[in-house]
Amino acid sequence: MLDKSNAPIGVFDSGVGGLTVAGEIMRQMPRESIVYFGDTARVPYGSKSKDTIIKYARQIINFLKTKEVKAIVIACNTASAYALDTVINENDLPVIGVIHAGAVQAARVTNNKRIGVIGTKGTVSSGIYPKFIKDIDKGIEVTQKACPLLCPLVEEGLMHDNVTDEIISRYVSELKSKYIDTLVLGCTHYPLLKPAIAKIMGQSVNLVDPAYETALELSKLLDRYGIKKDSNIKAEYNFYVSDLAESFQDFASMILPNEVKNTKKINIEEY
Amino acid sequence: MLDKSNAPIGVFDSGVGGLTVAGEIMRQMPRESIVYFGDTARVPYGSKSKDTIIKYARQIINFLKTKEVKAIVIACNTASAYALDTVINENDLPVIGVIHAGAVQAARVTNNKRIGVIGTKGTVSSGIYPKFIKDIDKGIEVTQKACPLLCPLVEEGLMHDNVTDEIISRYVSELKSKYIDTLVLGCTHYPLLKPAIAKIMGQSVNLVDPAYETALELSKLLDRYGIKKDSNIKAEYNFYVSDLAESFQDFASMILPNEVKNTKKINIEEY
Repeated sequence: MLDKSNAPIGVFDSGVGGLTVAGEIMRQMPRESIVYFGDTARVPYGSKSKDTIIKYARQIINFLKTKEVKAIVIACNTASAYALDTVINENDLPVIGVIHAGAVQAARVTNNKRIGVIGTKGTVSSGIYPKFIKDIDKGIEVTQKACPLLCPLVEEGLMHDNVTDEIISRYVSELKSKYIDTLVLGCTHYPLLKPAIAKIMGQSVNLVDPAYETALELSKLLDRYGIKKDSNIKAEYNFYVSDLAESFQDFASMILPNEVKNTKKINIEEY
Repeated sequence: MLDKSNAPIGVFDSGVGGLTVAGEIMRQMPRESIVYFGDTARVPYGSKSKDTIIKYARQIINFLKTKEVKAIVIACNTASAYALDTVINENDLPVIGVIHAGAVQAARVTNNKRIGVIGTKGTVSSGIYPKFIKDIDKGIEVTQKACPLLCPLVEEGLMHDNVTDEIISRYVSELKSKYIDTLVLGCTHYPLLKPAIAKIMGQSVNLVDPAYETALELSKLLDRYGIKKDSNIKAEYNFYVSDLAESFQDFASMILPNEVKNTKKINIEEY
Protein backbone atom coordinates (compact mmCIF):
# COMPACT_ATOMS: atom_id res chain seq x y z
CA MET A 1 0.00 0.00 0.00
CA LEU A 2 2.85 2.37 0.81
CA ASP A 3 4.16 2.15 -2.75
CA LYS A 4 0.75 2.78 -4.24
CA SER A 5 0.25 5.96 -2.15
CA ASN A 6 3.45 7.43 -3.45
CA ALA A 7 2.67 6.61 -7.07
CA PRO A 8 1.78 9.50 -9.38
CA ILE A 9 -1.66 10.57 -10.51
CA GLY A 10 -2.30 10.18 -14.24
CA VAL A 11 -3.98 13.17 -15.88
CA PHE A 12 -4.86 13.37 -19.56
CA ASP A 13 -6.47 15.68 -22.06
CA SER A 14 -6.71 16.15 -25.80
CA GLY A 15 -3.99 18.75 -25.56
CA VAL A 16 -3.22 21.70 -23.32
CA GLY A 17 -6.64 22.41 -21.77
CA GLY A 18 -6.28 19.73 -19.11
CA LEU A 19 -3.30 21.60 -17.73
CA THR A 20 -5.83 23.79 -15.89
CA VAL A 21 -6.87 20.63 -14.02
CA ALA A 22 -3.25 19.57 -13.44
CA GLY A 23 -2.59 23.10 -12.14
CA GLU A 24 -5.45 22.84 -9.63
CA ILE A 25 -4.15 19.46 -8.42
CA MET A 26 -0.68 20.98 -7.96
CA ARG A 27 -2.14 23.88 -5.98
CA GLN A 28 -4.51 21.82 -3.83
CA MET A 29 -2.24 18.78 -3.32
CA PRO A 30 1.33 20.02 -3.74
CA ARG A 31 2.84 16.73 -2.55
CA GLU A 32 1.22 14.57 -5.23
CA SER A 33 3.24 13.61 -8.31
CA ILE A 34 1.59 13.86 -11.72
CA VAL A 35 2.07 12.16 -15.08
CA TYR A 36 0.34 14.32 -17.67
CA PHE A 37 -0.47 13.19 -21.19
CA GLY A 38 -1.64 15.70 -23.81
CA ASP A 39 -2.87 14.15 -27.06
CA THR A 40 -1.48 16.99 -29.15
CA ALA A 41 -1.27 14.86 -32.31
CA ARG A 42 -5.01 14.20 -32.30
CA VAL A 43 -6.34 17.40 -30.72
CA PRO A 44 -9.12 18.60 -30.75
CA TYR A 45 -11.49 15.98 -29.39
CA GLY A 46 -14.49 18.34 -29.34
CA SER A 47 -15.58 17.67 -32.90
CA LYS A 48 -14.90 13.91 -32.96
CA SER A 49 -17.27 10.97 -32.52
CA LYS A 50 -17.84 8.89 -29.40
CA ASP A 51 -16.22 5.72 -30.83
CA THR A 52 -13.07 7.60 -31.74
CA ILE A 53 -12.81 9.22 -28.31
CA ILE A 54 -13.28 5.89 -26.50
CA LYS A 55 -10.48 4.36 -28.59
CA TYR A 56 -8.19 7.29 -27.78
CA ALA A 57 -9.01 7.14 -24.05
CA ARG A 58 -8.22 3.41 -23.93
CA GLN A 59 -4.84 3.95 -25.58
CA ILE A 60 -3.96 6.76 -23.21
CA ILE A 61 -4.99 4.80 -20.12
CA ASN A 62 -2.84 1.89 -21.32
CA PHE A 63 0.05 4.31 -21.60
CA LEU A 64 -0.53 5.88 -18.17
CA LYS A 65 -0.65 2.42 -16.60
CA THR A 66 2.90 1.80 -17.84
CA LYS A 67 3.81 4.75 -15.58
CA GLU A 68 2.27 2.93 -12.59
CA VAL A 69 -0.25 5.66 -11.81
CA LYS A 70 -2.49 5.15 -8.77
CA ALA A 71 -5.50 7.01 -10.17
CA ILE A 72 -6.52 8.63 -13.43
CA VAL A 73 -8.18 11.97 -14.09
CA ILE A 74 -9.77 12.47 -17.51
CA ALA A 75 -9.08 16.20 -17.62
CA CYS A 76 -11.10 16.77 -20.77
CA ASN A 77 -14.82 17.36 -20.85
CA THR A 78 -15.36 15.69 -24.22
CA ALA A 79 -13.44 12.55 -23.21
CA SER A 80 -15.20 12.48 -19.83
CA ALA A 81 -18.58 12.81 -21.59
CA TYR A 82 -17.95 10.05 -24.10
CA ALA A 83 -15.50 7.61 -22.51
CA LEU A 84 -15.66 7.73 -18.71
CA ASP A 85 -18.42 5.12 -18.25
CA THR A 86 -16.68 2.69 -20.57
CA VAL A 87 -13.18 3.00 -19.13
CA ILE A 88 -14.33 2.93 -15.49
CA ASN A 89 -15.70 -0.55 -16.13
CA GLU A 90 -12.56 -1.71 -17.87
CA ASN A 91 -10.09 -0.65 -15.19
CA ASP A 92 -9.45 -1.61 -11.59
CA LEU A 93 -7.84 1.68 -10.57
CA PRO A 94 -9.96 4.75 -9.78
CA VAL A 95 -10.80 6.91 -12.79
CA ILE A 96 -12.63 10.22 -12.54
CA GLY A 97 -13.72 12.75 -15.13
CA VAL A 98 -14.25 16.50 -14.91
CA ILE A 99 -18.00 16.54 -15.37
CA HIS A 100 -19.41 15.03 -12.19
CA ALA A 101 -17.82 17.52 -9.80
CA GLY A 102 -18.84 20.48 -11.97
CA ALA A 103 -22.43 19.27 -12.24
CA VAL A 104 -22.70 18.72 -8.47
CA GLN A 105 -21.33 22.17 -7.71
CA ALA A 106 -23.64 23.84 -10.26
CA ALA A 107 -26.69 22.12 -8.75
CA ARG A 108 -25.52 23.20 -5.29
CA VAL A 109 -25.05 26.91 -6.03
CA THR A 110 -28.03 27.69 -8.28
CA ASN A 111 -30.85 29.56 -6.58
CA ASN A 112 -33.32 29.99 -9.43
CA LYS A 113 -32.70 26.49 -10.82
CA ARG A 114 -31.61 27.77 -14.21
CA ILE A 115 -28.14 26.61 -15.19
CA GLY A 116 -26.22 27.29 -18.38
CA VAL A 117 -23.47 25.05 -19.78
CA ILE A 118 -20.91 26.05 -22.39
CA GLY A 119 -18.54 23.52 -23.98
CA THR A 120 -17.33 21.93 -27.21
CA LYS A 121 -19.71 20.43 -29.75
CA GLY A 122 -18.91 16.95 -28.41
CA THR A 123 -19.59 17.78 -24.76
CA VAL A 124 -22.81 19.63 -25.57
CA SER A 125 -24.18 17.00 -27.95
CA SER A 126 -23.41 14.24 -25.44
CA GLY A 127 -25.98 15.89 -23.13
CA ILE A 128 -24.02 14.70 -20.12
CA TYR A 129 -24.14 17.92 -18.04
CA PRO A 130 -27.95 18.18 -18.27
CA LYS A 131 -28.19 14.47 -17.43
CA PHE A 132 -25.94 14.70 -14.34
CA ILE A 133 -27.60 17.91 -13.14
CA LYS A 134 -31.11 16.53 -13.60
CA ASP A 135 -30.10 13.32 -11.79
CA ILE A 136 -29.44 15.55 -8.77
CA ASP A 137 -32.56 17.72 -9.16
CA LYS A 138 -34.87 17.21 -12.07
CA GLY A 139 -36.50 20.58 -11.40
CA ILE A 140 -33.39 22.34 -12.71
CA GLU A 141 -33.60 23.75 -16.23
CA VAL A 142 -30.32 23.40 -18.15
CA THR A 143 -29.54 25.37 -21.31
CA GLN A 144 -26.45 24.45 -23.30
CA LYS A 145 -24.42 26.23 -25.94
CA ALA A 146 -21.53 24.82 -28.00
CA CYS A 147 -18.72 27.39 -28.37
CA PRO A 148 -16.24 25.95 -30.91
CA LEU A 149 -14.28 29.19 -31.35
CA LEU A 150 -13.32 29.66 -27.71
CA CYS A 151 -10.53 27.03 -27.63
CA PRO A 152 -8.76 28.42 -30.71
CA LEU A 153 -9.08 31.95 -29.29
CA VAL A 154 -7.49 30.84 -26.00
CA GLU A 155 -4.74 28.95 -27.84
CA GLU A 156 -4.06 32.12 -29.84
CA GLY A 157 -3.59 33.94 -26.52
CA LEU A 158 -6.59 36.26 -26.99
CA MET A 159 -7.92 35.87 -23.45
CA HIS A 160 -8.29 39.62 -23.00
CA ASP A 161 -9.44 40.92 -26.33
CA ASN A 162 -12.48 42.66 -27.77
CA VAL A 163 -12.88 40.00 -30.47
CA THR A 164 -13.07 37.28 -27.82
CA ASP A 165 -15.54 39.39 -25.83
CA GLU A 166 -17.69 39.76 -28.95
CA ILE A 167 -17.66 36.02 -29.66
CA ILE A 168 -18.46 35.20 -26.01
CA SER A 169 -21.33 37.72 -26.05
CA ARG A 170 -22.86 36.01 -29.06
CA TYR A 171 -22.47 32.53 -27.62
CA VAL A 172 -24.02 33.44 -24.26
CA SER A 173 -26.82 35.71 -25.48
CA GLU A 174 -29.31 32.83 -25.53
CA LEU A 175 -28.21 31.76 -22.03
CA LYS A 176 -28.71 35.29 -20.71
CA SER A 177 -32.20 35.40 -22.18
CA LYS A 178 -33.02 32.32 -20.07
CA TYR A 179 -32.01 34.19 -16.88
CA ILE A 180 -29.53 31.54 -15.76
CA ASP A 181 -27.87 32.30 -12.41
CA THR A 182 -25.11 29.67 -12.80
CA LEU A 183 -22.83 28.93 -15.75
CA VAL A 184 -20.68 25.80 -16.02
CA LEU A 185 -17.40 26.40 -17.88
CA GLY A 186 -17.63 22.98 -19.52
CA CYS A 187 -14.29 22.90 -21.30
CA THR A 188 -10.89 22.93 -19.61
CA HIS A 189 -9.79 25.91 -21.70
CA TYR A 190 -12.57 28.13 -20.44
CA PRO A 191 -11.29 28.91 -16.92
CA LEU A 192 -8.68 31.03 -18.73
CA LEU A 193 -11.58 33.12 -20.06
CA LYS A 194 -13.12 33.56 -16.61
CA PRO A 195 -12.50 37.33 -16.40
CA ALA A 196 -14.04 37.91 -19.84
CA ILE A 197 -17.00 35.61 -19.18
CA ALA A 198 -17.60 37.13 -15.72
CA LYS A 199 -17.65 40.63 -17.23
CA ILE A 200 -20.19 39.61 -19.88
CA MET A 201 -22.42 37.48 -17.64
CA GLY A 202 -22.43 39.99 -14.78
CA GLN A 203 -21.77 39.57 -11.07
CA SER A 204 -25.07 37.85 -10.33
CA VAL A 205 -24.10 34.72 -12.29
CA ASN A 206 -22.03 32.02 -10.55
CA LEU A 207 -19.26 30.62 -12.72
CA VAL A 208 -18.51 26.96 -12.00
CA ASP A 209 -14.98 25.82 -12.86
CA PRO A 210 -14.90 22.00 -13.15
CA ALA A 211 -11.08 21.99 -12.95
CA TYR A 212 -11.21 23.37 -9.41
CA GLU A 213 -14.10 21.11 -8.37
CA THR A 214 -12.42 18.05 -9.86
CA ALA A 215 -9.23 18.59 -7.87
CA LEU A 216 -11.38 18.73 -4.70
CA GLU A 217 -13.19 15.52 -5.72
CA LEU A 218 -9.88 13.82 -6.46
CA SER A 219 -8.59 14.67 -2.99
CA LYS A 220 -11.64 12.99 -1.42
CA LEU A 221 -11.25 10.00 -3.72
CA LEU A 222 -7.61 9.48 -2.73
CA ASP A 223 -8.65 9.66 0.94
CA ARG A 224 -11.41 7.13 0.37
CA TYR A 225 -9.01 4.68 -1.29
CA GLY A 226 -6.36 5.43 1.35
CA ILE A 227 -3.84 6.28 -1.34
CA LYS A 228 -2.97 9.91 -0.62
CA LYS A 229 0.74 10.51 -0.75
CA ASP A 230 2.29 10.03 2.68
CA SER A 231 5.97 10.70 2.06
CA ASN A 232 7.69 14.05 1.98
CA ILE A 233 9.58 13.31 -1.21
CA LYS A 234 9.19 16.27 -3.55
CA ALA A 235 6.41 15.93 -6.11
CA GLU A 236 7.51 14.99 -9.62
CA TYR A 237 5.75 16.28 -12.69
CA ASN A 238 6.23 14.49 -16.00
CA PHE A 239 4.66 15.61 -19.24
CA TYR A 240 4.08 13.45 -22.30
CA VAL A 241 2.54 14.45 -25.60
CA SER A 242 1.71 12.65 -28.83
CA ASP A 243 3.21 15.44 -30.89
CA LEU A 244 5.97 17.80 -29.96
CA ALA A 245 4.27 21.07 -30.77
CA GLU A 246 6.28 23.96 -29.34
CA SER A 247 3.06 25.57 -28.26
CA PHE A 248 2.56 22.89 -25.57
CA GLN A 249 5.54 24.11 -23.59
CA ASP A 250 4.55 27.78 -24.04
CA PHE A 251 1.01 27.13 -22.97
CA ALA A 252 2.04 24.99 -20.01
CA SER A 253 4.33 27.72 -18.73
CA MET A 254 1.42 30.16 -18.91
CA ILE A 255 -0.99 27.95 -16.94
CA LEU A 256 1.05 26.02 -14.39
CA PRO A 257 2.49 27.28 -11.12
CA ASN A 258 5.73 25.40 -11.84
CA GLU A 259 7.95 25.53 -14.87
CA VAL A 260 7.58 22.71 -17.38
CA LYS A 261 10.97 21.47 -18.41
CA ASN A 262 10.97 18.05 -19.98
CA THR A 263 8.11 17.17 -22.29
CA LYS A 264 8.53 13.80 -23.99
CA LYS A 265 6.87 12.67 -27.16
CA ILE A 266 5.45 9.15 -27.35
CA ASN A 267 3.70 7.20 -30.10
CA ILE A 268 0.26 6.87 -28.54
CA GLU A 269 -1.06 4.67 -31.34
CA GLU A 270 1.18 1.85 -30.11
CA TYR A 271 -0.78 1.53 -26.87
CA MET B 1 -3.58 2.12 -70.19
CA LEU B 2 -7.31 2.42 -70.88
CA ASP B 3 -8.10 1.17 -67.39
CA LYS B 4 -5.65 3.53 -65.77
CA SER B 5 -7.14 6.56 -67.59
CA ASN B 6 -10.57 5.81 -66.26
CA ALA B 7 -9.37 5.28 -62.70
CA PRO B 8 -10.25 7.95 -60.13
CA ILE B 9 -8.04 10.72 -58.82
CA GLY B 10 -7.22 10.47 -55.11
CA VAL B 11 -7.51 13.73 -53.18
CA PHE B 12 -6.83 14.10 -49.47
CA ASP B 13 -6.78 16.69 -46.76
CA SER B 14 -6.77 16.91 -42.97
CA GLY B 15 -10.52 17.48 -43.10
CA VAL B 16 -12.89 19.61 -45.11
CA GLY B 17 -10.55 22.29 -46.49
CA GLY B 18 -9.33 20.13 -49.38
CA LEU B 19 -12.88 20.04 -50.69
CA THR B 20 -12.12 23.44 -52.27
CA VAL B 21 -9.50 21.61 -54.36
CA ALA B 22 -11.85 18.72 -55.12
CA GLY B 23 -14.46 21.30 -56.15
CA GLU B 24 -12.03 22.95 -58.59
CA ILE B 25 -11.18 19.56 -60.12
CA MET B 26 -14.90 18.84 -60.54
CA ARG B 27 -15.42 22.19 -62.24
CA GLN B 28 -12.34 22.06 -64.47
CA MET B 29 -12.46 18.31 -65.29
CA PRO B 30 -16.08 17.22 -64.88
CA ARG B 31 -15.46 13.78 -66.36
CA GLU B 32 -12.83 12.74 -63.83
CA SER B 33 -13.84 10.55 -60.90
CA ILE B 34 -12.55 11.41 -57.44
CA VAL B 35 -11.89 9.48 -54.24
CA TYR B 36 -11.65 12.02 -51.44
CA PHE B 37 -10.27 11.29 -48.00
CA GLY B 38 -10.70 13.78 -45.13
CA ASP B 39 -8.72 12.96 -42.00
CA THR B 40 -11.44 14.31 -39.72
CA ALA B 41 -10.32 12.19 -36.75
CA ARG B 42 -6.87 13.81 -36.71
CA VAL B 43 -7.67 17.30 -38.00
CA PRO B 44 -6.11 19.89 -37.77
CA TYR B 45 -2.68 19.24 -39.29
CA GLY B 46 -1.61 22.89 -39.08
CA SER B 47 -0.24 22.68 -35.56
CA LYS B 48 1.39 19.22 -35.82
CA SER B 49 5.01 18.24 -36.42
CA LYS B 50 6.61 17.12 -39.67
CA ASP B 51 7.12 13.50 -38.55
CA THR B 52 3.49 13.15 -37.59
CA ILE B 53 2.27 14.60 -40.89
CA ILE B 54 4.52 12.30 -42.94
CA LYS B 55 3.18 9.28 -41.06
CA TYR B 56 -0.41 10.39 -41.69
CA ALA B 57 0.25 11.06 -45.40
CA ARG B 58 1.75 7.58 -45.83
CA GLN B 59 -1.27 5.92 -44.24
CA ILE B 60 -3.67 7.91 -46.41
CA ILE B 61 -1.76 7.16 -49.61
CA ASN B 62 -1.80 3.45 -48.70
CA PHE B 63 -5.57 3.72 -48.32
CA LEU B 64 -6.07 5.62 -51.60
CA LYS B 65 -4.02 3.00 -53.44
CA THR B 66 -6.53 0.36 -52.36
CA LYS B 67 -9.04 2.41 -54.40
CA GLU B 68 -6.80 2.06 -57.50
CA VAL B 69 -6.32 5.80 -57.96
CA LYS B 70 -4.28 6.93 -60.97
CA ALA B 71 -2.86 10.07 -59.34
CA ILE B 72 -2.89 11.69 -55.92
CA VAL B 73 -3.43 15.33 -54.95
CA ILE B 74 -2.35 16.36 -51.47
CA ALA B 75 -5.05 18.99 -51.07
CA CYS B 76 -3.65 20.36 -47.83
CA ASN B 77 -0.94 22.98 -47.60
CA THR B 78 0.53 21.65 -44.35
CA ALA B 79 0.75 18.08 -45.66
CA SER B 80 2.15 19.33 -48.99
CA ALA B 81 4.74 21.38 -47.13
CA TYR B 82 5.87 18.57 -44.85
CA ALA B 83 5.25 15.31 -46.70
CA LEU B 84 5.22 15.80 -50.49
CA ASP B 85 8.97 15.31 -51.08
CA THR B 86 9.01 12.13 -49.01
CA VAL B 87 5.94 10.49 -50.52
CA ILE B 88 6.83 11.40 -54.12
CA ASN B 89 9.97 9.31 -53.73
CA GLU B 90 8.11 6.41 -52.18
CA ASN B 91 5.40 6.07 -54.83
CA ASP B 92 5.36 5.22 -58.52
CA LEU B 93 2.14 7.05 -59.31
CA PRO B 94 2.07 10.83 -59.80
CA VAL B 95 1.58 12.82 -56.58
CA ILE B 96 1.16 16.59 -56.50
CA GLY B 97 0.66 19.06 -53.70
CA VAL B 98 -1.07 22.43 -53.61
CA ILE B 99 1.98 24.59 -53.04
CA HIS B 100 3.92 24.43 -56.29
CA ALA B 101 1.12 25.74 -58.51
CA GLY B 102 0.31 28.54 -56.08
CA ALA B 103 3.95 29.61 -55.81
CA VAL B 104 4.40 29.61 -59.60
CA GLN B 105 1.27 31.70 -60.12
CA ALA B 106 2.26 34.18 -57.39
CA ALA B 107 5.71 34.65 -58.94
CA ARG B 108 4.05 35.14 -62.33
CA VAL B 109 1.55 37.83 -61.31
CA THR B 110 3.59 39.99 -58.92
CA ASN B 111 4.78 43.27 -60.39
CA ASN B 112 6.61 44.81 -57.46
CA LYS B 113 8.16 41.48 -56.36
CA ARG B 114 6.62 41.64 -52.92
CA ILE B 115 4.48 38.61 -52.13
CA GLY B 116 2.59 37.80 -48.94
CA VAL B 117 1.67 34.28 -47.82
CA ILE B 118 -0.95 33.41 -45.21
CA GLY B 119 -1.38 29.86 -43.88
CA THR B 120 -1.38 27.60 -40.83
CA LYS B 121 1.50 27.55 -38.36
CA GLY B 122 2.79 24.36 -40.00
CA THR B 123 2.80 25.74 -43.53
CA VAL B 124 4.38 29.02 -42.50
CA SER B 125 7.07 27.48 -40.30
CA SER B 126 7.98 24.99 -43.05
CA GLY B 127 9.07 28.00 -45.14
CA ILE B 128 8.09 26.16 -48.31
CA TYR B 129 6.28 29.00 -50.09
CA PRO B 130 9.25 31.39 -49.75
CA LYS B 131 11.57 28.57 -50.88
CA PHE B 132 9.51 27.73 -54.00
CA ILE B 133 8.99 31.39 -54.89
CA LYS B 134 12.67 32.24 -54.45
CA ASP B 135 13.65 29.22 -56.54
CA ILE B 136 11.75 30.89 -59.37
CA ASP B 137 13.05 34.43 -58.73
CA LYS B 138 15.33 35.09 -55.82
CA GLY B 139 14.68 38.82 -56.15
CA ILE B 140 11.17 38.36 -54.80
CA GLU B 141 10.60 39.33 -51.18
CA VAL B 142 8.17 37.02 -49.38
CA THR B 143 6.48 37.92 -46.10
CA GLN B 144 4.54 35.21 -44.27
CA LYS B 145 1.90 35.29 -41.56
CA ALA B 146 0.40 32.32 -39.69
CA CYS B 147 -3.36 32.75 -39.20
CA PRO B 148 -4.48 29.94 -36.84
CA LEU B 149 -7.95 31.42 -36.21
CA LEU B 150 -9.09 31.54 -39.82
CA CYS B 151 -9.86 27.81 -40.18
CA PRO B 152 -12.04 27.67 -37.05
CA LEU B 153 -13.85 30.85 -38.17
CA VAL B 154 -14.59 29.31 -41.59
CA GLU B 155 -15.70 26.04 -39.99
CA GLU B 156 -18.03 28.05 -37.75
CA GLY B 157 -19.56 29.53 -40.92
CA LEU B 158 -18.42 33.10 -40.18
CA MET B 159 -17.20 33.83 -43.71
CA HIS B 160 -19.08 37.13 -43.85
CA ASP B 161 -18.79 38.58 -40.38
CA ASN B 162 -17.27 41.63 -38.73
CA VAL B 163 -15.33 39.47 -36.24
CA THR B 164 -13.69 37.58 -39.11
CA ASP B 165 -12.94 40.89 -40.84
CA GLU B 166 -11.32 42.19 -37.65
CA ILE B 167 -9.16 39.05 -37.25
CA ILE B 168 -8.13 39.14 -40.92
CA SER B 169 -7.25 42.85 -40.60
CA ARG B 170 -4.93 42.10 -37.69
CA TYR B 171 -3.28 39.16 -39.43
CA VAL B 172 -2.62 41.06 -42.66
CA SER B 173 -1.61 44.43 -41.19
CA GLU B 174 2.08 43.52 -41.30
CA LEU B 175 1.73 42.28 -44.90
CA LYS B 176 0.05 45.54 -45.92
CA SER B 177 2.87 47.54 -44.36
CA LYS B 178 5.27 45.67 -46.68
CA TYR B 179 3.30 46.87 -49.73
CA ILE B 180 2.77 43.38 -51.14
CA ASP B 181 0.91 43.32 -54.45
CA THR B 182 0.17 39.55 -54.34
CA LEU B 183 -1.19 37.41 -51.54
CA VAL B 184 -1.14 33.59 -51.57
CA LEU B 185 -4.11 32.05 -49.76
CA GLY B 186 -1.90 29.26 -48.40
CA CYS B 187 -4.57 27.12 -46.71
CA THR B 188 -7.39 25.34 -48.50
CA HIS B 189 -9.98 26.95 -46.21
CA TYR B 190 -9.02 30.47 -47.20
CA PRO B 191 -10.58 30.65 -50.69
CA LEU B 192 -13.88 30.73 -48.78
CA LEU B 193 -12.70 33.99 -47.22
CA LYS B 194 -11.77 35.51 -50.57
CA PRO B 195 -14.46 38.23 -50.50
CA ALA B 196 -13.45 39.32 -46.98
CA ILE B 197 -9.72 39.21 -47.73
CA ALA B 198 -10.19 41.06 -51.05
CA LYS B 199 -12.14 43.82 -49.26
CA ILE B 200 -9.42 44.23 -46.62
CA MET B 201 -6.41 43.98 -48.97
CA GLY B 202 -7.92 46.26 -51.61
CA GLN B 203 -8.30 45.84 -55.36
CA SER B 204 -4.64 46.41 -56.15
CA VAL B 205 -3.57 43.13 -54.47
CA ASN B 206 -3.75 39.88 -56.49
CA LEU B 207 -5.16 36.97 -54.51
CA VAL B 208 -3.67 33.63 -55.54
CA ASP B 209 -5.89 30.60 -54.88
CA PRO B 210 -3.75 27.43 -54.90
CA ALA B 211 -6.88 25.24 -55.20
CA TYR B 212 -7.65 26.73 -58.60
CA GLU B 213 -4.02 26.63 -59.75
CA THR B 214 -3.57 23.05 -58.56
CA ALA B 215 -6.55 21.81 -60.59
CA LEU B 216 -4.96 23.43 -63.67
CA GLU B 217 -1.60 21.78 -62.88
CA LEU B 218 -3.29 18.43 -62.36
CA SER B 219 -4.94 18.68 -65.78
CA LYS B 220 -1.53 19.20 -67.41
CA LEU B 221 -0.04 16.34 -65.36
CA LEU B 222 -2.75 13.90 -66.50
CA ASP B 223 -2.10 14.95 -70.11
CA ARG B 224 1.62 14.43 -69.68
CA TYR B 225 1.13 10.93 -68.29
CA GLY B 226 -1.55 10.22 -70.94
CA ILE B 227 -4.04 9.25 -68.25
CA LYS B 228 -6.85 11.77 -68.69
CA LYS B 229 -10.23 10.08 -68.63
CA ASP B 230 -11.28 9.09 -72.13
CA SER B 231 -14.64 7.46 -71.56
CA ASN B 232 -17.98 9.20 -71.26
CA ILE B 233 -19.04 7.25 -68.19
CA LYS B 234 -20.36 9.69 -65.59
CA ALA B 235 -17.84 10.78 -62.99
CA GLU B 236 -18.11 9.11 -59.60
CA TYR B 237 -17.34 10.90 -56.38
CA ASN B 238 -16.62 8.89 -53.26
CA PHE B 239 -15.89 10.44 -49.90
CA TYR B 240 -14.10 8.77 -47.01
CA VAL B 241 -13.35 10.20 -43.58
CA SER B 242 -11.55 8.96 -40.49
CA ASP B 243 -14.35 10.18 -38.25
CA LEU B 244 -17.98 10.59 -39.11
CA ALA B 245 -18.45 14.15 -37.98
CA GLU B 246 -21.79 15.46 -39.24
CA SER B 247 -20.14 18.73 -40.06
CA PHE B 248 -18.22 17.07 -42.94
CA GLN B 249 -21.39 16.48 -44.91
CA ASP B 250 -22.70 20.00 -44.14
CA PHE B 251 -19.47 21.61 -45.14
CA ALA B 252 -19.13 19.53 -48.31
CA SER B 253 -22.61 20.53 -49.42
CA MET B 254 -21.65 24.17 -48.95
CA ILE B 255 -18.46 23.94 -51.03
CA LEU B 256 -19.05 21.40 -53.78
CA PRO B 257 -21.04 21.87 -56.98
CA ASN B 258 -22.60 18.41 -56.52
CA GLU B 259 -24.40 16.99 -53.54
CA VAL B 260 -22.42 14.71 -51.26
CA LYS B 261 -24.46 11.65 -50.41
CA ASN B 262 -22.42 8.75 -49.15
CA THR B 263 -19.53 9.48 -46.84
CA LYS B 264 -17.91 6.36 -45.43
CA LYS B 265 -15.82 6.14 -42.30
CA ILE B 266 -12.63 4.08 -42.37
CA ASN B 267 -10.01 3.29 -39.73
CA ILE B 268 -7.04 5.13 -41.22
CA GLU B 269 -4.63 3.88 -38.56
CA GLU B 270 -4.87 0.39 -40.08
CA TYR B 271 -3.18 1.52 -43.30
